[in-house]
Amino acid sequence: MRDLHENQIKKAVEAVANRKEVNEVYFVACGGSQAVLMAGQYLFDKESTIPSHVYTANEFVYDTPKNLNENSVVISCSHSGNTPETVEATKLAREKGAVTICLSNLEGSPLWEAAEYPVHYDWGKDVSDSDKNKGILYGLLFSLLNVLAPNPKWDVCLKELEKLTELSNAAKEQYAQDAKNWAKAQKRDPIIYTIGSGINYGEVYSTAMCWFMEMQWINSGCIHSGEYFHGPFEITDYDVPFMLVKSMGNTRHLDQRVEDFATKFTDKLLVLDQNDLQLDGVAPEAKQYIAAILSGVVIRLFVEAIAFERGHSLDVRRYMWQMSY
Amino acid sequence: MRDLHENQIKKAVEAVANRKEVNEVYFVACGGSQAVLMAGQYLFDKESTIPSHVYTANEFVYDTPKNLNENSVVISCSHSGNTPETVEATKLAREKGAVTICLSNLEGSPLWEAAEYPVHYDWGKDVSDSDKNKGILYGLLFSLLNVLAPNPKWDVCLKELEKLTELSNAAKEQYAQDAKNWAKAQKRDPIIYTIGSGINYGEVYSTAMCWFMEMQWINSGCIHSGEYFHGPFEITDYDVPFMLVKSMGNTRHLDQRVEDFATKFTDKLLVLDQNDLQLDGVAPEAKQYIAAILSGVVIRLFVEAIAFERGHSLDVRRYMWQMSY
Repeated sequence: MRDLHENQIKKAVEAVANRKEVNEVYFVACGGSQAVLMAGQYLFDKESTIPSHVYTANEFVYDTPKNLNENSVVISCSHSGNTPETVEATKLAREKGAVTICLSNLEGSPLWEAAEYPVHYDWGKDVSDSDKNKGILYGLLFSLLNVLAPNPKWDVCLKELEKLTELSNAAKEQYAQDAKNWAKAQKRDPIIYTIGSGINYGEVYSTAMCWFMEMQWINSGCIHSGEYFHGPFEITDYDVPFMLVKSMGNTRHLDQRVEDFATKFTDKLLVLDQNDLQLDGVAPEAKQYIAAILSGVVIRLFVEAIAFERGHSLDVRRYMWQMSY
Repeated sequence: MRDLHENQIKKAVEAVANRKEVNEVYFVACGGSQAVLMAGQYLFDKESTIPSHVYTANEFVYDTPKNLNENSVVISCSHSGNTPETVEATKLAREKGAVTICLSNLEGSPLWEAAEYPVHYDWGKDVSDSDKNKGILYGLLFSLLNVLAPNPKWDVCLKELEKLTELSNAAKEQYAQDAKNWAKAQKRDPIIYTIGSGINYGEVYSTAMCWFMEMQWINSGCIHSGEYFHGPFEITDYDVPFMLVKSMGNTRHLDQRVEDFATKFTDKLLVLDQNDLQLDGVAPEAKQYIAAILSGVVIRLFVEAIAFERGHSLDVRRYMWQMSY
């Protein structure tokens, strides 16, 4: 991680450490950025006794949780830093006295100015993955947990983030051919569902909402593995495609149940199993977190492949940025 | 509300009141029951300073939140009382010392035995709506808030629940023709999206997952109104159907934005506006909660109408209850 980013995170963590107590951590953003933050809510729920919550920004603004006050921490995120709802939510949180931390690719953006503790992340081809949005988010989360739920493992996890670029490249190579094959087979499908659980739910959420619906105009819906058998599985048929992220973490059993069932009733089940990732060189404490980030890298590969097969660039939009709404 | 139910709720509330502190309220269930409980999480977040969380039961079991202990309240729900994941989650919560409250239609069921404070609800045609699952849930929630976030309005809200049967009947009459018209027009559509916000999110969630996918084998996905513009709206086209519940509560602005946009780009937008409900006789404090329940009644009418038009009974399942999974 670059010194700049490390220092920005350090300042944010110090501010949190200086609060007498932390009553709740709110993760607030929209769309893909909200999806990225979902991992934070998972981590806090499972690794600390501090309650946490994910909010889509405008619900946070219009129907503000009553527990938001000077003991709260609000972490917001917007790539461009100019998502109006997220800026508004961050301003509101700061007015209420909460510690406001934002993640953004753009220094000096409205979100950057709104948050008391802005943290920058890099973007693009030639930067380290540990300095991109997820690397920086996990860096922030591990550093916060170091203070709020102290455990030597957070320093180990922090260090392992440095391996992200190398591991991402290996994962891309590993899945390159699978992605092409899948994309050719699925390119005419009018709908593709995504399924996942635990820390991976955010990835399958953004795959449905952003990759498929927004960037490919492919119908989609996101199903939690634990919910599949309580309704959604009735839609399963031989020609209905699903993309399942199979966790290496505690909720693997939920994903396994989905795989065991869906394998029997659809010919179009894609399973992205985190146990297939090459993580031998990663410390055990960090594996599931690194895997969660790598699953995003692998999914992107599949999405890029289907975009190519469909001749539908991931940059095309018909409404977003084209008009006011 | 029947005395039996009132007494069961009273016992549960007393148990909560007797705890020195409540650190978190967990709403734990699967599918449609989880969707019903989502209103509880909304209410606690917006009306109390006690953090709350909704969990699909198996994630709660396999990846238990660290904050679960003797200061927690766990509210679970299963109609039959024999959803294995929900029973397991309730047992686990009780072992951890939490106050366990369950809602079920079946006294003596495994869930009933697992929870320390079981609360029964009625089901069927000739019972009062205030004694059905949502009437009882809101009765429990208002009674809990009476203790955890005291306010004279909770007694007013409790009393207004008695009007549910009458209001439901009026709503059914009001929407009968609209439901038939909509069902005829949409019956061939391969996908119908649902959209909503705030306290109504649970209703649109269960409409997508249970009504459409499970009971009609219609493809669906559930979109939060605040998220629509951050990805999903790119799927909008003249022939893509959406069902929008337009709140009368604080998040109405979010729903209104969706309506304003979608009206322009799809010919198949159904708006169920809570301001159209006949609530003149309902106390202002209770209106948005009564409306949330009535929206479920209205949606059911539309779903029954489309089931009829498609000749696909709501009772048909191909996997659920037909095999082990």
